[in-house]
Amino acid sequence: MINTDLKAINQRLREFAEARDWEQFHSPKNLAMALSVEVSEIVEHFQWLTEGQSNNLPKDKLAEVETELADTLIYLIRLADKLNIDLLTAAQNKIELNEQKYPIDKAKGSAKKYTEHV
Amino acid sequence: MINTDLKAINQRLREFAEARDWEQFHSPKNLAMALSVEVSEIVEHFQWLTEGQSNNLPKDKLAEVETELADTLIYLIRLADKLNIDLLTAAQNKIELNEQKYPIDKAKGSAKKYTEHV
Amino acid sequence: MINTDLKAINQRLREFAEARDWEQFHSPKNLAMALSVEVSEIVEHFQWLTEGQSNNLPKDKLAEVETELADTLIYLIRLADKLNIDLLTAAQNKIELNEQKYPIDKAKGSAKKYTEHV
Amino acid sequence: MINTDLKAINQRLREFAEARDWEQFHSPKNLAMALSVEVSEIVEHFQWLTEGQSNNLPKDKLAEVETELADTLIYLIRLADKLNIDLLTAAQNKIELNEQKYPIDKAKGSAKKYTEHV
Repeated sequence: MINTDLKAINQRLREFAEARDWEQFHSPKNLAMALSVEVSEIVEHFQWLTEGQSNNLPKDKLAEVETELADTLIYLIRLADKLNIDLLTAAQNKIELNEQKYPIDKAKGSAKKYTEHV
Repeated sequence: MINTDLKAINQRLREFAEARDWEQFHSPKNLAMALSVEVSEIVEHFQWLTEGQSNNLPKDKLAEVETELADTLIYLIRLADKLNIDLLTAAQNKIELNEQKYPIDKAKGSAKKYTEHV
Repeated sequence: MINTDLKAINQRLREFAEARDWEQFHSPKNLAMALSVEVSEIVEHFQWLTEGQSNNLPKDKLAEVETELADTLIYLIRLADKLNIDLLTAAQNKIELNEQKYPIDKAKGSAKKYTEHV
Repeated sequence: MINTDLKAINQRLREFAEARDWEQFHSPKNLAMALSVEVSEIVEHFQWLTEGQSNNLPKDKLAEVETELADTLIYLIRLADKLNIDLLTAAQNKIELNEQKYPIDKAKGSAKKYTEHV
């Protein structure tokens, strides 16, 4: 897999942290915390909305959510970098596993995966 | 930006959900919750470790963390798709803002950004 | 305020950790992480449910959620203890602030607090 | 168990929500999300600190954390109320289980519970 886009961002984030002497703060433990905080800022936008409303965010709200998604991807890329994990390969492997775990003919029309929180 | 890799995964995740009739569960509200749950499974691996230990995970632990990172990216891509957000562009715009907000000469050697949780 | 119940649990949790030499793991940083992980285990039970379904959990699911709520309270009490915070007083002070911040006549029938995520 | 303190807060929170017509937003699903968001605001204060620093918060920071702990307890009490769960009894039952699960003589000096994230 080519994986050019994430690699470029990864490199830019590395240089950003190094130039500012901020690598010292970026232990995997700390980055995992920061990642969870950013995701909660996404959740905060949706917590009192109905599912229907969450599908139809007003423009200004959507712009705010976009920034939180960006922050989430940024910390996710940083954390993967620190752990030497190739994010895209990991995701593709996991999707393959899911495709085997939930064959279409059995899964279709069944919410069991969801009601059982597997 | 070319953005080919994430687009391919995005398309595969769409087809996966559609083929199983699972789109009905994938409201942005629900996907935000699922995303936060996956990230907490990352945090769980690090909660009792020192920062130093978090930099040196044993192989089996690292493999588990890799799977959680994969799940996190998967839900992040799904959520962005539902909101029509281009993840890579959003991340690049945010990095640009950060580069302006924290100029190297002022940020270097200062932990202010971190101690103030800006 | 008498606060007898939480104090008794607090004392029991202290003795539990001390007897096992586990105080060394219970820094506020680590306890905050553990608290967030427990809360995510609550969220996990609700992530794919409609709001209506979340009001009518089957008995076995409810018992699982009860255990997660217990774990959450346990870590919350531990964290407050480590920081020398009186949880009940803090909660009562915050409720008082909320009562002033959202006067009934203005708040009634308005979802503004919620739609604005204040 | 007498449980007077939490009961009083619970009653006050009920009246607060009813008087403002806010019960409509307080489904268990939504309250679980709000709870997780409040806990993340605790985590945010600790994410870049060392464990040692997290034990010695400056006064103003500590006051902010106190408010987040209060919010967390408030949503935890609300959620338990909606699910008809007695928080204190649940916590005491869980502590009893933990005392049996981790006998002192086996647990002492062992970090196994922690390194294995049981």
